[in-house]
Amino acid sequence: MLVVKKFGGTSVANKERIFNVAKRCIEEYKKGNQVVVVLSAMGKQTDVLLDMAKDINPKPSRREMDMLLTTGEQTSVALMAMAMDSLGVPAVSLNAFQVAMHTTADYSNARLKKIDTERIQYELDNRRIVIITGFQGINKFDDYTTLGRGGSDTTAVALAAALHADACEIYTDVDGVFTADPRVVPNARKLEEITYDEMLEMASLGAGVLHNRSVEMAKKYGVQLVVRSSLNTSEGTVVKEESKMEKMLVSGVATDKNVVQFAVKGLENKPGVAFKLFQHLANHNVNVDMILQSVEHGGTQDIVFTVTQDSADEALNILERHGNSSLKCDEITVTKEVSKVSIVGAGMMSNAGVAAKMFEALYDAGVNIRQISTSEIRVTVLIDEKYTNQAAQAVHDAFAL
Amino acid sequence: MLVVKKFGGTSVANKERIFNVAKRCIEEYKKGNQVVVVLSAMGKQTDVLLDMAKDINPKPSRREMDMLLTTGEQTSVALMAMAMDSLGVPAVSLNAFQVAMHTTADYSNARLKKIDTERIQYELDNRRIVIITGFQGINKFDDYTTLGRGGSDTTAVALAAALHADACEIYTDVDGVFTADPRVVPNARKLEEITYDEMLEMASLGAGVLHNRSVEMAKKYGVQLVVRSSLNTSEGTVVKEESKMEKMLVSGVATDKNVVQFAVKGLENKPGVAFKLFQHLANHNVNVDMILQSVEHGGTQDIVFTVTQDSADEALNILERHGNSSLKCDEITVTKEVSKVSIVGAGMMSNAGVAAKMFEALYDAGVNIRQISTSEIRVTVLIDEKYTNQAAQAVHDAFAL
Repeated sequence: MLVVKKFGGTSVANKERIFNVAKRCIEEYKKGNQVVVVLSAMGKQTDVLLDMAKDINPKPSRREMDMLLTTGEQTSVALMAMAMDSLGVPAVSLNAFQVAMHTTADYSNARLKKIDTERIQYELDNRRIVIITGFQGINKFDDYTTLGRGGSDTTAVALAAALHADACEIYTDVDGVFTADPRVVPNARKLEEITYDEMLEMASLGAGVLHNRSVEMAKKYGVQLVVRSSLNTSEGTVVKEESKMEKMLVSGVATDKNVVQFAVKGLENKPGVAFKLFQHLANHNVNVDMILQSVEHGGTQDIVFTVTQDSADEALNILERHGNSSLKCDEITVTKEVSKVSIVGAGMMSNAGVAAKMFEALYDAGVNIRQISTSEIRVTVLIDEKYTNQAAQAVHDAFAL
Repeated sequence: MLVVKKFGGTSVANKERIFNVAKRCIEEYKKGNQVVVVLSAMGKQTDVLLDMAKDINPKPSRREMDMLLTTGEQTSVALMAMAMDSLGVPAVSLNAFQVAMHTTADYSNARLKKIDTERIQYELDNRRIVIITGFQGINKFDDYTTLGRGGSDTTAVALAAALHADACEIYTDVDGVFTADPRVVPNARKLEEITYDEMLEMASLGAGVLHNRSVEMAKKYGVQLVVRSSLNTSEGTVVKEESKMEKMLVSGVATDKNVVQFAVKGLENKPGVAFKLFQHLANHNVNVDMILQSVEHGGTQDIVFTVTQDSADEALNILERHGNSSLKCDEITVTKEVSKVSIVGAGMMSNAGVAAKMFEALYDAGVNIRQISTSEIRVTVLIDEKYTNQAAQAVHDAFAL
């Protein structure tokens, strides 16, 4: 059996944790399995490197930034190989050049294109544990690239696909995927299984266990993932195509406080107004989330949408610049104290009344809904931030999760 | 004109120094020249990485050690490219993979075999300053290797040879090569020129400006070197095949306190004794320097030799293990408070009486000679360490340097 195991930066932040991971991988190896380990940079190493760069050049080129950042994972993998070696197990570290981890040309946000497996297979055949740098690749110019947020998860999934691995385990600091954030909803339950689509909705809603790109890739190549804790040996949550819990209406409740609501009021009611508004935002890389367009009243209409907190200043800037001239709006309001509460479940598709049940639970809890957005397997409401926890608890209880 | 400039770790130890180097290279670039910069790891970065490794595994594999250490230079070159970019000059950093810096397979002490110049030439043709990681290479397995001590100098010389550079400048924290160490002999003078052979003798005697391997390579490929300061714009010392100072008997006086003398007394006077003794030492990688074998007295003989301080414990260990059994010696004595004083000069070859003049100067200064060793262009004496400075001064004055 061939197993890919991915450990994040906190799991390799110091000597003790490095040995903890080493022992865990050696256990797997001693069962007779082939083991491929994917690592991120140690602890805050990436932040340290970012700060060094910013100190030298406030706007460093992305090509050189990737050249700098890739030293982080190379440090982790070399130290891990030394740790395993000191425990008497042969191990070898490989970086993006040595594997030949081909990506698109985009620095700082590249996408994996192709992974050569020859060297990895050679090392595995020689009964070595193979430790590979996550997050990084090389492009057609033979330059380093990095994969952006959640990059190491993506590396692990891509390796599992390329090597036809029997398992791909993503180790984190939580036990798996929960029906809600246990810090918000104390009686939240760990899920045994979840579908790719549910996981994608959960991830984009701030559940934060797996990055969307890795789940998308897992779905595309049919790689079955296990999300589990690096701190204990509990079973974790399996992410796969079809969940045996399919019949459950709702798998989980997600909350997200990283949201700011904008209302652009009194826009002319004519074609192209919404297009112009969102094009201005897109041109400046501001990602817009929930969008609501009001019905006309008195010849004008309002458009309401949300962005993440770190995009809020930029969004306001753009709106103020274009608000009066090209958009001709009356007023722009910004509401920062809001949050999103969502229910996610593959079973929703074939069941009416799920949204209504959620709204009822919120009404009973005295929580006012400011905005609603839905997908096939998700219902999201925007509410006042101070009610986040009680709203999540009420919805969690209503669906008996 | 194509110029290769090499800067050591102290020259890039912090932001200010990085910018200092960047500006210096940009001056050259703005003259219309093509500029290749070779850098070492920042300041004590290599030591930090070594300590991290030793903490994980007291005997790390050399392969993984090289994987770890090569992150050091990669960090320097990326930051340097960012610094030049912030000063408005296009620059690109390249590591051993990107250049394709082929070496022998030996980890931690590899030798350069072949450098591909295509990528470098492409970047130079596009009017970029090219910043290359010193000290590192890749071997036939596509693994990182490092070149051992003085490795970055060697990288610079090899690049100058491969690119047919018009100049190869080695920047250090001193103004050039001196007739003696100015801290030891206050009236020491900077040399305008020195031959490769003289430089080789100086380097091996602890003058420490250039590592022997880089000088050997420069000699082999006829690369004219300039050793100069990164702190000022003084001219430095040219290292080349023939010096116009050829007629000078002596170019410089070198001192070296990093030496321990061993005397192995009462050895049987029969063939193979010296061979056995030095084979034991060589088997444990103890490099032996000055060797003196006494004439026979009473059926036995003594062998006296020196090693560097960091090899002294190991050497004693080996001698004690084998002293009584295979070597059958009477006594082993170790003298730590000794130092070497040497004169070096290409003119010595054709001039008798140089050694005698040195001995006379030492006698006049009241310095006792413990051991003597000579080469074609060098005379070295071993003396009590406490007399090092006055011996150096006396010899320096005697030859009117």
